[in-house]
Amino acid sequence: MKRADELRDAVEAYLGSLAFAPELGRLQDTLRYALESGGKRVRPVLCLAVAEAAGGEVDAALPAAAAIELVHTFSLVHDDLPALDDDDERRGRPSAHVAHGEGVALLAGDAVLVEAFRLALSYEDTRIARELADATLGMIGGQHRDITGDDGDLAEVERLKTGRLFVGAVTLGLLAARAYDAGRESWLAFGENLGLLFQVVDDILDGDGFAERLGAEGARELADGAATRARNALAGLSADTTVLDELVESLAVRTA
Amino acid sequence: MKRADELRDAVEAYLGSLAFAPELGRLQDTLRYALESGGKRVRPVLCLAVAEAAGGEVDAALPAAAAIELVHTFSLVHDDLPALDDDDERRGRPSAHVAHGEGVALLAGDAVLVEAFRLALSYEDTRIARELADATLGMIGGQHRDITGDDGDLAEVERLKTGRLFVGAVTLGLLAARAYDAGRESWLAFGENLGLLFQVVDDILDGDGFAERLGAEGARELADGAATRARNALAGLSADTTVLDELVESLAVRTA
Repeated sequence: MKRADELRDAVEAYLGSLAFAPELGRLQDTLRYALESGGKRVRPVLCLAVAEAAGGEVDAALPAAAAIELVHTFSLVHDDLPALDDDDERRGRPSAHVAHGEGVALLAGDAVLVEAFRLALSYEDTRIARELADATLGMIGGQHRDITGDDGDLAEVERLKTGRLFVGAVTLGLLAARAYDAGRESWLAFGENLGLLFQVVDDILDGDGFAERLGAEGARELADGAATRARNALAGLSADTTVLDELVESLAVRTA
Repeated sequence: MKRADELRDAVEAYLGSLAFAPELGRLQDTLRYALESGGKRVRPVLCLAVAEAAGGEVDAALPAAAAIELVHTFSLVHDDLPALDDDDERRGRPSAHVAHGEGVALLAGDAVLVEAFRLALSYEDTRIARELADATLGMIGGQHRDITGDDGDLAEVERLKTGRLFVGAVTLGLLAARAYDAGRESWLAFGENLGLLFQVVDDILDGDGFAERLGAEGARELADGAATRARNALAGLSADTTVLDELVESLAVRTA
């Protein structure tokens, strides 16, 4: 069983070796720019770790893991555009639209999203691409609630905007491992609470969202509760969840 | 065999009955606004007519035809954004971003694209969703060449930007009819030339693109050549192509 950092290396190598559609021409450069942003790769690592815990092979789950990361990348490229968050920087580098222009970044986001489906469609099991579609639509629904201020229920907004892609990563890992049915409810509870944990800690570090709504202490309690529920969900599974337990721990204590 | 206007009615009824992902919440209104734009539905009608000519059922091809129209709709919503063409109107109505805001239109375009894949994934045959992905990536590659001025070869730009989705419509019609292999080359030639015909006539009506590059007479010659090649391709098929021949004729002589 591979450690989280080994899984991350596998993700990086796979993403670096991806062949995009040649018809994209020089737009491929913007896709690579957006993908090489030095993120933590939390979602694809989660997908691979779930696949391995469920008895699958890392290599067989790599296209699914990459598909999840590509959907995440698409959402960042579009989120950074002036029409949405208008962020000039992403992880210390110019955002895609600052580096390559707004129109190009818009098209690159579109293309990354479609490339995600190409990866998901490399599997015979169409449930992988269908789950990717459902997770992406959930995420977009969360973003829409977020920007239109229809966010009275912050937990529901975040369950969609961030949590749905975490649940998608878990589900794709299970599907890639051909282990979709075993322990379905525990896996879902794990994915949902890990997504919540990730988002609440994000908000604590940024001083917004849940931290703003609940105060630092309330947010910390919510994060601890989510971490506990994620660990309990793992404990209910008949699988070697060592790496996943470490993932919970690392997300609970992260400072960046 | 259904006439073109009957196929168009079937497309309208199907599009009007589409159930979008409930997680999209009120964003569904923007998707409907963009879809109800009163377009000619050339691509889905083409898809259905090909499916019927190839021996398939219209009903079985409707999700594929709608998927093609949704990809077309997504491209219009994003094209109209200030970051690309900055068009305030679309077929006499305010563009989606003028009516519902830029950020919402951006997300709606994303969501329509994913809904297209959901439709394509309703088929067991993953080639339908894969062809949709390939056609979409080709179209995006053409758009990128267009906006970056990398359009020295206008025919190549248009082959991707417009033609690829016409070829996709033909291919999805064949796949939905389970008739992918018969007459493959003739069908491809038909789709490519129909796309070219559509675009050249568009440019003649708008006085740009091919009309600007070749002059009105040169563009008319190019259109006539494309129409002839499309008809010849149909003549080479052992199929009842009456409706498709009428489609070629109507695109050749259209004035709007």
